Amino acid sequence: MRLASFTANGRNSYGVVSKNGGVTDLGSRLEQKTLLELLRADALDSARKYVTEKSDYTLDDIKLGLPVQGGEKIICVGINYPEREEEYKGEIKRGSYPNLFVRFPSSFSPPGEAIIRPRVSDQLDYEGEIALVIGKSGRHILQANALEHIAAITAANEGTVRDWVKHGTKNITQGKNFERSGSIGPWIVTTDEVDPSQDLKIITRVNGNIRQNGSTKDMFWPFEELISYISTFTTLVPGDMILTGTPVGAGAHQSPPSYLVPGDVVEVEVTGVGTLSNRVEDEA
Amino acid sequence: MRLASFTANGRNSYGVVSKNGGVTDLGSRLEQKTLLELLRADALDSARKYVTEKSDYTLDDIKLGLPVQGGEKIICVGINYPEREEEYKGEIKRGSYPNLFVRFPSSFSPPGEAIIRPRVSDQLDYEGEIALVIGKSGRHILQANALEHIAAITAANEGTVRDWVKHGTKNITQGKNFERSGSIGPWIVTTDEVDPSQDLKIITRVNGNIRQNGSTKDMFWPFEELISYISTFTTLVPGDMILTGTPVGAGAHQSPPSYLVPGDVVEVEVTGVGTLSNRVEDEA
Repeated sequence: MRLASFTANGRNSYGVVSKNGGVTDLGSRLEQKTLLELLRADALDSARKYVTEKSDYTLDDIKLGLPVQGGEKIICVGINYPEREEEYKGEIKRGSYPNLFVRFPSSFSPPGEAIIRPRVSDQLDYEGEIALVIGKSGRHILQANALEHIAAITAANEGTVRDWVKHGTKNITQGKNFERSGSIGPWIVTTDEVDPSQDLKIITRVNGNIRQNGSTKDMFWPFEELISYISTFTTLVPGDMILTGTPVGAGAHQSPPSYLVPGDVVEVEVTGVGTLSNRVEDEA
Repeated sequence: MRLASFTANGRNSYGVVSKNGGVTDLGSRLEQKTLLELLRADALDSARKYVTEKSDYTLDDIKLGLPVQGGEKIICVGINYPEREEEYKGEIKRGSYPNLFVRFPSSFSPPGEAIIRPRVSDQLDYEGEIALVIGKSGRHILQANALEHIAAITAANEGTVRDWVKHGTKNITQGKNFERSGSIGPWIVTTDEVDPSQDLKIITRVNGNIRQNGSTKDMFWPFEELISYISTFTTLVPGDMILTGTPVGAGAHQSPPSYLVPGDVVEVEVTGVGTLSNRVEDEA
């Protein structure tokens, strides 16, 4: 089941998106008025009843929003694909623990909308990633049970302003939080359709050219290890997202480096999810 | 004006706390039902009308909550007091830009409640800090106008799990986000009472003994520089908080290191704000 948040006829809602692009409005049918509320109520089964319902809109009638809005936290994983060691010239190894950082929702543009190259840098870069959407609360989650805590999977462009990542000596916060520098979506797909225990592919294209092409089987920290580790220090709650790291091939590591410029179109394609697409614009 | 969020008679509300500990309920009197809504509505003046009102409760009648709940972001500043260079054995200098990291609301306990030493570490440490509460939205804020964006000031214990700060090679996220490892409050004090352009003192005590004793005049990155810099990459919005760094004297840098143990009481006192107090308990 593909679930999206959207605006239609000036109203914010959410619903099921069918394979042929029909959209069935759930905000008008269910007690839960947002996708976050649906996740918190553990009510995916109520949503499922409407999968076969006649659709209310086509994708052209609606404006997609970030799929899950108002969640408590967005946790991002640093270097998680081994081949990136080469990009980092051997500097980065698996290490004993994952690298984690945080993004604010305001650092993401809705699917289909422009991602923004800021005034202060010409080093806006893409990072295609697989994002996990938490559906079940937990602390001290065992790896054996970890995948049960995932409600859905989606794609993300974890857009990064490279020079600003280096501003802090101990943290990369600012380069990862430029307003509307990334995106998430276009929708989330529940784990009955995309099995997180299977190998998932992630491909990033810029203007149609493949720049990143990864497989989750290569990750240093598979989903269950990430969930278990993160839940050691914080309670994961429905609506939380984990962005699981990007494969080799970011623009910063092309030779010569190739950053995004206005007009570029970045696509992130994830097995079973579909394609997140955003064009690049300069900050006004 | 001192503004607090609280629970009274099973109801969540917020209000004005007088100098003698009387609490006037604003949630029952104003259109805005939370302190965050009050800030978003730029309605501090409506609140001010009730400062002289007869109080509804005493502090003993209510249970304080985190003062501002549901805000978009909590941004924390790394090493910001020069004397800490010594703690870091000269390794840390002012550098060209501030160090920034992020904390989730769930990493803070309400004022007066226990902060939690986690099962996985015996290195829970205090960090007394001054926290700014944003009252006015802005991006690309000039230093000259920056202080106008502060609605209020409060105290924070930016509690840190030292060994987990070192887990990531590029980020300190996990050691800064243990559930209920810090605290904020006990209330926020508006800038008409605590002038952020003046030198403010911050004192941290453990079991009554002074461990940290700092002055904002010593900060590497004064409030106006922080606000201006942060707003280069993100829009500051009402309810956002900036935790402005901790003075010399954290437990990790005592000789020998002295971490918090269950039963310890940590107090953070800030000029014009008052004292935030929390005892330490072990994770259940």
